[in-house]
Amino acid sequence: MTDRLGPPLAAPLVERLAIIGVGLIGSSIVRAARRKRAARFIAVADVSREARERAAALKLGDAVVASAAEAAADADLVILCAPVGADEALAREIGPALKKGAIVSDVGSVKGAVIAAATPYLPAGAHFVPAHPVAGTELSGPDAGFATLFVNRWCVLTPPEGTDPEAVERVRALWEALGANVETMDAARHDLVLAITSHVPHLIAYNIVGTAYDLEETTRGEVIKFSAGGFRDFTRIAASDPTMWRDVFLNNREAVLEALGRFTEDLSALQRMIRRGDGDGLFELFSRTRAIRRGIVEQGQETAAPDFGRGRAEDGNGSGGK
Amino acid sequence: MTDRLGPPLAAPLVERLAIIGVGLIGSSIVRAARRKRAARFIAVADVSREARERAAALKLGDAVVASAAEAAADADLVILCAPVGADEALAREIGPALKKGAIVSDVGSVKGAVIAAATPYLPAGAHFVPAHPVAGTELSGPDAGFATLFVNRWCVLTPPEGTDPEAVERVRALWEALGANVETMDAARHDLVLAITSHVPHLIAYNIVGTAYDLEETTRGEVIKFSAGGFRDFTRIAASDPTMWRDVFLNNREAVLEALGRFTEDLSALQRMIRRGDGDGLFELFSRTRAIRRGIVEQGQETAAPDFGRGRAEDGNGSGGK
Repeated sequence: MTDRLGPPLAAPLVERLAIIGVGLIGSSIVRAARRKRAARFIAVADVSREARERAAALKLGDAVVASAAEAAADADLVILCAPVGADEALAREIGPALKKGAIVSDVGSVKGAVIAAATPYLPAGAHFVPAHPVAGTELSGPDAGFATLFVNRWCVLTPPEGTDPEAVERVRALWEALGANVETMDAARHDLVLAITSHVPHLIAYNIVGTAYDLEETTRGEVIKFSAGGFRDFTRIAASDPTMWRDVFLNNREAVLEALGRFTEDLSALQRMIRRGDGDGLFELFSRTRAIRRGIVEQGQETAAPDFGRGRAEDGNGSGGK
Repeated sequence: MTDRLGPPLAAPLVERLAIIGVGLIGSSIVRAARRKRAARFIAVADVSREARERAAALKLGDAVVASAAEAAADADLVILCAPVGADEALAREIGPALKKGAIVSDVGSVKGAVIAAATPYLPAGAHFVPAHPVAGTELSGPDAGFATLFVNRWCVLTPPEGTDPEAVERVRALWEALGANVETMDAARHDLVLAITSHVPHLIAYNIVGTAYDLEETTRGEVIKFSAGGFRDFTRIAASDPTMWRDVFLNNREAVLEALGRFTEDLSALQRMIRRGDGDGLFELFSRTRAIRRGIVEQGQETAAPDFGRGRAEDGNGSGGK
């Protein structure tokens, strides 16, 4: 296991790459693709002037423009990297500009809704290969990206039935070049699995941080003070981009409500155990959950360092005391 | 802000210190107290033979014994560091052995129940100063401790009305020597604030990891694979010591159920927003929660590094790719 991107490719995988939206994910793709020399030319588009200025200052892309259609024209591969709620409008905008045989992909955390929203606007000669790199941090914007974000992370492709296999292979090759492990999956299954592993955890984190925020002023100060007791872990993901996450919940409603239903059923059972003083039941659950973390650490999806390796103690033993 | 413990004290604060229970917290106190030369003699007791053997091998304590009463006899300060469910039995055991004027303290995450359970067994000449250092990692046992665990963390003292002020000052001085910031608080208020900042977050983390664990086998593999989407953050605290946490929930039932009630009310409101497609409501909450994290980072209770500073990317920009 390594967090290195490895040497540049012998030849580019894509002649002209267009990245629409240069936030955490878009800017990380540009950084990684440049480092790997995966594309000969990279055009970047963003509706935000501030984002374009940062992208230009950071030298992200050979061209930085406001118009998605302008960036997409002549591109061999266009990757939509805006919040998923923008994908329908973006598809409508770039559709007429796409050249024949162009591949369109995306990075959305929701796949079913994106496929439904974008497909009608893409011309017959274009290939849509939806993708979701399962990677990120709580920061957003062009400055937050970094080239190794995708290394040893999973990228899920959800090509609808009948998608051109060569287009799928091209997108797979790009993600592998960026360091990701690629898996293909049905869009509906993706949306349910991610509802459990990502969407509901975010919802719960937002919720408990909101509950704490709504306490009276004095208690809020104490919540911050004593956050090292567990709470602060939740605040990290509750600091994620609000627009992105609003769109996730609006666009994966069914699967999120289904996963949330399971969560609240289980929580009611746990609540009952506490009310009844069922120590054995609590102990049994608390023991079981250790196994899942072991699996995650073993598969290289998490650090084994205590406390996430936060800070560094003077005795080199890991501490939150930073 | 620093994570250093600083130079040893000019003179010890305590002649004879007894640590009952040599897990993550107890062994960290011993390590820090030795480094600071805060006690002239440290006796360690643990009911587990394995823990005693590790403590002896790690040279934790000047004496390592099985009997709490033996360690507590002649001690000026006895700190109970076992799971809170054991405190009543420990108080009963050490009560008769305590010398006149001895101070008894503890490190439990629950204060009201511990005061109620231990006080009846402590002799009139002893002083009980309940304490709770808000610090820890997901690991447990003598090997998991480290000397800087308490640096810049808060330690809450909850002395009942009428507790000898000199005894309180002695315990405060010890925790300050170990690097902690000390605050005094009413036990009931402590239990409610910690229910929100620590107990309910742990409960929720255990719950969602349990929900994921209970999915059918194939999905469980996917949960591990795609855990970088948010889920893995929850697995860290759901890997905490099961005995300790069982005891917390059994002993802080009222406050936990109260805090959990607020959480589930808020979650229902959030669920309704998703069902109704209320994007503005979601966005408003998701924006608000960022402020709390900022406060935690500013007050030095959390690292500002993205992704908790997990791993280290080759471009020095922080990545989970380890």
